[in-house]
Amino acid sequence: MTNSSLLNAAASDFPAWVSSKQARIEQTLAQTLPAGNIAPNTLHDAMRYSALTGGKRVRALLCYAAAEMCDTNIVIADAAACAVELIHAYSLVHDDMPCMDDDDLRRGKPSCHKQYDDATALLVGDALQSLAFEALSQPRLCNNTGLQASQQINMLNMLAKATGSTGMAGGQAIDLASIGKSLTQAELESMHQLKTGALIQAAVLLGAINGSNAQMAAVRTYAANIGLAFQVVDDILDVEADTATLGKTAGKDADANKPTYVTILGLALARQHAQKLYENAIAAIAPFGDSAQRLRELATFIMQRSF
Amino acid sequence: MTNSSLLNAAASDFPAWVSSKQARIEQTLAQTLPAGNIAPNTLHDAMRYSALTGGKRVRALLCYAAAEMCDTNIVIADAAACAVELIHAYSLVHDDMPCMDDDDLRRGKPSCHKQYDDATALLVGDALQSLAFEALSQPRLCNNTGLQASQQINMLNMLAKATGSTGMAGGQAIDLASIGKSLTQAELESMHQLKTGALIQAAVLLGAINGSNAQMAAVRTYAANIGLAFQVVDDILDVEADTATLGKTAGKDADANKPTYVTILGLALARQHAQKLYENAIAAIAPFGDSAQRLRELATFIMQRSF
Repeated sequence: MTNSSLLNAAASDFPAWVSSKQARIEQTLAQTLPAGNIAPNTLHDAMRYSALTGGKRVRALLCYAAAEMCDTNIVIADAAACAVELIHAYSLVHDDMPCMDDDDLRRGKPSCHKQYDDATALLVGDALQSLAFEALSQPRLCNNTGLQASQQINMLNMLAKATGSTGMAGGQAIDLASIGKSLTQAELESMHQLKTGALIQAAVLLGAINGSNAQMAAVRTYAANIGLAFQVVDDILDVEADTATLGKTAGKDADANKPTYVTILGLALARQHAQKLYENAIAAIAPFGDSAQRLRELATFIMQRSF
Repeated sequence: MTNSSLLNAAASDFPAWVSSKQARIEQTLAQTLPAGNIAPNTLHDAMRYSALTGGKRVRALLCYAAAEMCDTNIVIADAAACAVELIHAYSLVHDDMPCMDDDDLRRGKPSCHKQYDDATALLVGDALQSLAFEALSQPRLCNNTGLQASQQINMLNMLAKATGSTGMAGGQAIDLASIGKSLTQAELESMHQLKTGALIQAAVLLGAINGSNAQMAAVRTYAANIGLAFQVVDDILDVEADTATLGKTAGKDADANKPTYVTILGLALARQHAQKLYENAIAAIAPFGDSAQRLRELATFIMQRSF
């Protein structure tokens, strides 16, 4: 079997790849998070409750796919995927708090501040963020992995920027400030590029750390487009879920004050826009053929959440 | 003038050294924090409001003093002191929030959530933490400073551990859980070693990153002792401030439910304990003579806050 046909054979089994990588990140997170019987027990319990509740782990999958494309060592990919998922988990815990989105449920379970209390949720988010940087700054990551310490510094700097006030936290601030306001599509896009796009882009770029300049540039464009597509699909799903469950979900009227791709573009144009972003993402990684197959499949996976 | 007499001459001017280093860290923070006219403006305004409000900057001073002892390049010391002060500022913003200590005032000004709102304060703390890791992961820190990238990784890992659930955030969780409970002196000490000790120790160790193994070991012992002494002095000050302002400060009765060195040891033994910790700290750095003068002066400075 040639290398290329091996890749094709593997590529045909995307669902199995997703399952194995989801299991892998779950195990990595379980090992990285302090055990619930280590003091302070309640804080550690609550951190595990919040970070191990699953979800699709799209960010970790993107990181692993980019790592496979760029031959990044799996030890590095594990640490990067873990760090990104810890940052994502922290953001969900804080976003759910009463002073933010005030969500009582997260994936069908009580959100952290409901299961524990507000003070614990605050500390859980804080400590998950620290743990992300701890996981990515492990000195062992440069042991026989081909990673240079200077590259690891770049990864940490990239993650910090994606997480902070000019990344995810900044996007959340703009989102809060935009409630009840009308935004242009450009303003909405720039908000989402920070709020969800920055971390998705970091996930892909961290996975691609071993890549050539051409590969890094390509995955950067891929990530920027797929990050926005992810958000457009989210907005479409919100409307479709609304339609399907009309009158059941309280509080959605208040949400209607938030500008979305659907409120700005309408449903049909929003779908077209998502499709265009998807095509841009696919085009960016086209030069890398079979080695980019997982990233292509993930792009389709992200789109198929809605249609 | 010999090198030693130069040091002695400098050492005689401790207040000037403190002022110059306080001005230096203030300027470094002002340059590191995004300007208030960079989007999202309110978030950046609020970050600057919270991190530039001053205070004694004890952690930065400890970092600079350790750096001088170990000939750590000033560029590294600036970044380390800045990162530690950003972590400290984030912790104050979150600790002041209604779900935690619910403090409306911080250094005579409205605390962040009073000046802005709870959601902004949450994001300010989150983003200050990210900025600390961004500041310490700047690739330029290895340019002509004598710092190896692998040492920078160690610094980041050290800061992450000191900040997270087995460091500062963990100590805060134990502190919250201990309200209304009686602790032994050992339990109280272990809580403070995390809550304030871990970051103080990180400040000294980061400053000492260029030191020999013997220097690192000595400053570690120095920091562990001075960190606890700092807390004992804090507890003594709390009582003395209570006495002086009796009947003026509302809400202090509730605080009385928190175990302190004074409630466990009584005032006289608490003073003796602080003195013993101070002596341990001084003894640890004795072998380094004049080069440890600033650390000695800072130990005295910390003690003289109360007597």
